[in-house]
Amino acid sequence: MYTRKEQLMIKALNQAKLAYKKGETPVGAIIVRDGQIISRGHNLKETKKDVTSHAEIEAIRRAARKLGTWRLDGCEMYVTLEPCPMCAGAIIQSRISTLYIGAMDNRAGAAGSAIDLFRIGQFNHRVDVVIGLLFEECGELLKDFFRNARRDADKGYK
Amino acid sequence: MYTRKEQLMIKALNQAKLAYKKGETPVGAIIVRDGQIISRGHNLKETKKDVTSHAEIEAIRRAARKLGTWRLDGCEMYVTLEPCPMCAGAIIQSRISTLYIGAMDNRAGAAGSAIDLFRIGQFNHRVDVVIGLLFEECGELLKDFFRNARRDADKGYK
Repeated sequence: MYTRKEQLMIKALNQAKLAYKKGETPVGAIIVRDGQIISRGHNLKETKKDVTSHAEIEAIRRAARKLGTWRLDGCEMYVTLEPCPMCAGAIIQSRISTLYIGAMDNRAGAAGSAIDLFRIGQFNHRVDVVIGLLFEECGELLKDFFRNARRDADKGYK
Repeated sequence: MYTRKEQLMIKALNQAKLAYKKGETPVGAIIVRDGQIISRGHNLKETKKDVTSHAEIEAIRRAARKLGTWRLDGCEMYVTLEPCPMCAGAIIQSRISTLYIGAMDNRAGAAGSAIDLFRIGQFNHRVDVVIGLLFEECGELLKDFFRNARRDADKGYK
């Protein structure tokens, strides 16, 4: 039996699976306002040949288009992997209220792993961050992707 | 008499002036490869209602479209203001080789002011950063913009 927040992370995981099917590192995000999902995004960096097309930024841009403003005050984001500095910066600037993170990114994560951008006081917005929501499920999908990528590399596919 | 690098920062300043004319915080950027300008960008956050439409990201996305890849190895960026964390993250991820900065952003800058993302060793790319190229000219344009914005606010325009 999943909680409501876990159910929303599962929606983000479904986005991550869409990325996986396209050969992208499987990361997904959704944005919720007043309990409703207002946008979804998954990593499309390779597909779009755009370094900024991470799941979080895809979702932020889509939410802004939908709401007609870049201000996402009162919105929550659910993302399957700890954001990188670029995405953490975009989340802070868009004024998202609460961020729910699944798995952590020990190498490049910006919510406590490589750095914690959410604890720098001088930015003009403070995001509440909740870590570890369905972290096993979120992490397993990524591990599976990288296992397969290595196996393909070993076979000389890449 | 301007050096070649100063001449390129003046091109970025010209981009910043385009942002100013549109009522945007005046920041401009250009990307150079093999001595040639391959893309330009200016801040369009309010115009596009997109929090990610900072000058640097506008220029990065345009360069990627032009080159047909998100990899901007061997490219230099000239930007009139110290990048925020979002843009610094995008610059690192796009693998830009060298970053030339005009004015510093004491509040939110991510190249040494609020934080220095360019000195975190564990990211998989290292950008060379040069600070203070035409910093007076770059800073003066921003100061002029904020002086006018305050004056308009005092008059009750906003």
